[in-house]
Amino acid sequence: MISARVLIRPKEGILDAQGKAVESALPALGFGGIEHVRVGRIVELNAESADRLDELCEKLLANPLIEDYEIEVL
Amino acid sequence: MISARVLIRPKEGILDAQGKAVESALPALGFGGIEHVRVGRIVELNAESADRLDELCEKLLANPLIEDYEIEVL
Repeated sequence: MISARVLIRPKEGILDAQGKAVESALPALGFGGIEHVRVGRIVELNAESADRLDELCEKLLANPLIEDYEIEVL
Repeated sequence: MISARVLIRPKEGILDAQGKAVESALPALGFGGIEHVRVGRIVELNAESADRLDELCEKLLANPLIEDYEIEVL
C-alpha cells in the first residue's frame, strides 16, 4: 500500500476564479504584499500501487482540458 | 518575496463529502484497491514575508472549525 498526493491546479492562462477572489479580498482584510494566488485541489489517497494513478487523474480527479496535475508518491 | 503553499484538508472526523464521492465512483470506473481518499484545497501564493501567513489561513483561506491547514514555504 502506498500513500499518494495529487495536486491539481488550473493551467497557466486559465482563469482561476478562486485565486482572483482571494486576491481581491486581501486588501480589505489588511493583507498587503501577497501576489499570484492560485487555488487548486489536493487529493490524498492510499493505493495498492502507483501504476494507475495517472489514469485515475485523467479520468476522474482532474479535468485535463483546464487543469494540470502532479502526483507525489509519499 | 517568498513562495508558499498552503494545504487545507478537512479535519479528521469531519465528513469529507468530495472524498466519499471519489471513493464511490472508483469501482464503476474499474479502479480497485484505492482507499482513504481525502480531498482538500491547495493555495499557492507569493508573499513579501511568511510572517502573516498563519493569520491569513485563519482569517481567509481555511475554516479552522472544520479544516486543518499546513503552510509550506518553498
